[in-house]
Amino acid sequence: MLTSKKISARSQRVSSFHVMDVMSRAKALEEKGKTIVHMEVGEPDFPTAQPILDAGKEFLEGGKVHYTTAQGLPALRKKIVQFYKVEYKVDISADQVFITPGASGALTVALALLLDEGREVLMADPGYPCNSNLTALFSAVANNIPVSAEQSFQLTATDVLQAWSDKTQGVMIASPSNPTGTLMNAEQMKALLEVINDKSGFLISDEIYHGLVYEDRAVSALEFSDDVFVLNSFSKFYGMTGWRLGWLIVPKYAIDAANRLIQNLYIAAPTQSQYAALVAFDKGTKKILMERKEEFKARRDYLFNGLKELGFILSEKPQGAFYIYADCSSFSDDSYAFSLALLNEAGVAVTPGIDFGGNNSKRYLRFAYTTSIEQIELGLARIRTFLKTRV
Amino acid sequence: MLTSKKISARSQRVSSFHVMDVMSRAKALEEKGKTIVHMEVGEPDFPTAQPILDAGKEFLEGGKVHYTTAQGLPALRKKIVQFYKVEYKVDISADQVFITPGASGALTVALALLLDEGREVLMADPGYPCNSNLTALFSAVANNIPVSAEQSFQLTATDVLQAWSDKTQGVMIASPSNPTGTLMNAEQMKALLEVINDKSGFLISDEIYHGLVYEDRAVSALEFSDDVFVLNSFSKFYGMTGWRLGWLIVPKYAIDAANRLIQNLYIAAPTQSQYAALVAFDKGTKKILMERKEEFKARRDYLFNGLKELGFILSEKPQGAFYIYADCSSFSDDSYAFSLALLNEAGVAVTPGIDFGGNNSKRYLRFAYTTSIEQIELGLARIRTFLKTRV
Repeated sequence: MLTSKKISARSQRVSSFHVMDVMSRAKALEEKGKTIVHMEVGEPDFPTAQPILDAGKEFLEGGKVHYTTAQGLPALRKKIVQFYKVEYKVDISADQVFITPGASGALTVALALLLDEGREVLMADPGYPCNSNLTALFSAVANNIPVSAEQSFQLTATDVLQAWSDKTQGVMIASPSNPTGTLMNAEQMKALLEVINDKSGFLISDEIYHGLVYEDRAVSALEFSDDVFVLNSFSKFYGMTGWRLGWLIVPKYAIDAANRLIQNLYIAAPTQSQYAALVAFDKGTKKILMERKEEFKARRDYLFNGLKELGFILSEKPQGAFYIYADCSSFSDDSYAFSLALLNEAGVAVTPGIDFGGNNSKRYLRFAYTTSIEQIELGLARIRTFLKTRV
Repeated sequence: MLTSKKISARSQRVSSFHVMDVMSRAKALEEKGKTIVHMEVGEPDFPTAQPILDAGKEFLEGGKVHYTTAQGLPALRKKIVQFYKVEYKVDISADQVFITPGASGALTVALALLLDEGREVLMADPGYPCNSNLTALFSAVANNIPVSAEQSFQLTATDVLQAWSDKTQGVMIASPSNPTGTLMNAEQMKALLEVINDKSGFLISDEIYHGLVYEDRAVSALEFSDDVFVLNSFSKFYGMTGWRLGWLIVPKYAIDAANRLIQNLYIAAPTQSQYAALVAFDKGTKKILMERKEEFKARRDYLFNGLKELGFILSEKPQGAFYIYADCSSFSDDSYAFSLALLNEAGVAVTPGIDFGGNNSKRYLRFAYTTSIEQIELGLARIRTFLKTRV
């Protein structure tokens, strides 16, 4: 009876994440009494901010946890419109805003809305692995373009122009990037959009780490064009990971299609999460979130300096998100094996570069500073000892 | 700038629901001060049961609303294993159970896991429209087989045998069915599985209305085979619609693929919903849910008799879910136009048959008894007056 013949070829194209092996191995070690420093996790360690928790609890008092419309709570969409006006000086209308189950939902909808079978979307390698995987799930092709530290790990207009073929439908970018934390600046964005518009292609801009940017500000693709698809999330800056809430902004011509896709794929995003998020943009909440941002910044600086000192090769200091993409080729030419050794021998969990693509990825590790300075300090000390024993 | 050229052909294959027009028209009428009797809505009108609300609030006290694993909370999956043991005398293991964002998530994962491009899945017409739409989204083909009242609107083994072609990969069923509320009994299920196994095809069994069955019991496909894909939900019997929580049970050979798909599509189901659902199977909760089930039964009987008396053509009394699929061809040969007239002239909102397929669907309306007996009484009185004025 047991056979895998029934499994679709489509689902075989969707790869697992190697970090899952790291995480389950870490758990096994912890169950044996070992302590592990977790720098593999892509979610903030903070609890949800109190005003958001309170709003969630208050909503549950009422008991009416019914479906919202597919597009999401009008009041929440209005707050998002206001957010774009204040943060980016951009005018969008509430009917362009879709509340989704996490930014995962926004990503799925954007790809389904735009990609046809056998057609292609250009994206940076390294990048968030679900971008390629979901593209493959829809029988389309992710053309992963190698990007280097010298170009801040972001696609350039030249990259896109060179890679564009008859198969290409559009481009996906992420700024700040996961795994690198690097930004695309206004000039780069403008140049990129010029090429894309020239080709009548689409742009999907992943802006889920906006808010967690420590020196400069992150620009939104919406500042330069109203013909872009923007993904954003309540998970990262707003610290609402487990609530599963994100949003998607689409051009007016795509409103109808986005509505149909969300109706069918999700019915709607979780209701209590939507009500809780109504206070996410409030002053009191923002104060808490800005304090956390300062904490992330301090961790970044501490981790960056520590890794550099240990001999990891780092280029520019990443300006956003909560990741450092570190070149560990001074120590190993196989970062996956190295990550397992770090875990088993030093008790430090990180994510191997191969989870983010094939571009020199065996040289890289992603460190997430989603844990306290004390833990980062402990992790760095353990790595130091580990490296000494290896020489 | 505004163009729809960029919208994928894929997303054009996903249709909207006509009931959305009914709902927005109903809302417009209500804003003008008209009262509308709502029998179009596919969700229980009851608030979430108090123990579930309390568990949700209690979980939020802790503040740690972080991601769960992609597969979902182990404690919740264990409870589901126990549920199958008690309700169906079936042994499954917890690693076959996946917690999903609504049964919508379970459906998406099952279809992606099994369907390849250009291949075909057989399903009953009338049926839940997302089944066809999501199949089309994945570039596969829903072969909608007309089923009649005489066969309880369920696919028979003969139907499946006749329709099977080289393109066919498997079959999807739903018992109780949406929109008809009818069941597939044990004999039918066995015969169907025999044909499917003979063809080495897959079976997806939508069991999201289990629990809401008023005389007989609903059989699970798992009682007859361990090589089936079962969808279930906390939305209907458990009344947790807005929480967006369902589950998927897969054969052992599909565990790895299901895990990869959920990681990529959703990261995980909403955390607070998973914790709240931990008390869904408790005795105290079940008592409340069973009382609500009795209320649904009384509504069904009341509505069934009322519609029959008014001249709607009804066959067997539907045994489950909260729908009556009524033939209105005594009054109109276009049930969509008829549903709009009912709304505009009588203030009664129902769902037109065309939302569920093309099989004689212009003769049918779906009435949902997700509103109080008093409202149903009012609705029936209004329809009576409306029908008189039309003669």
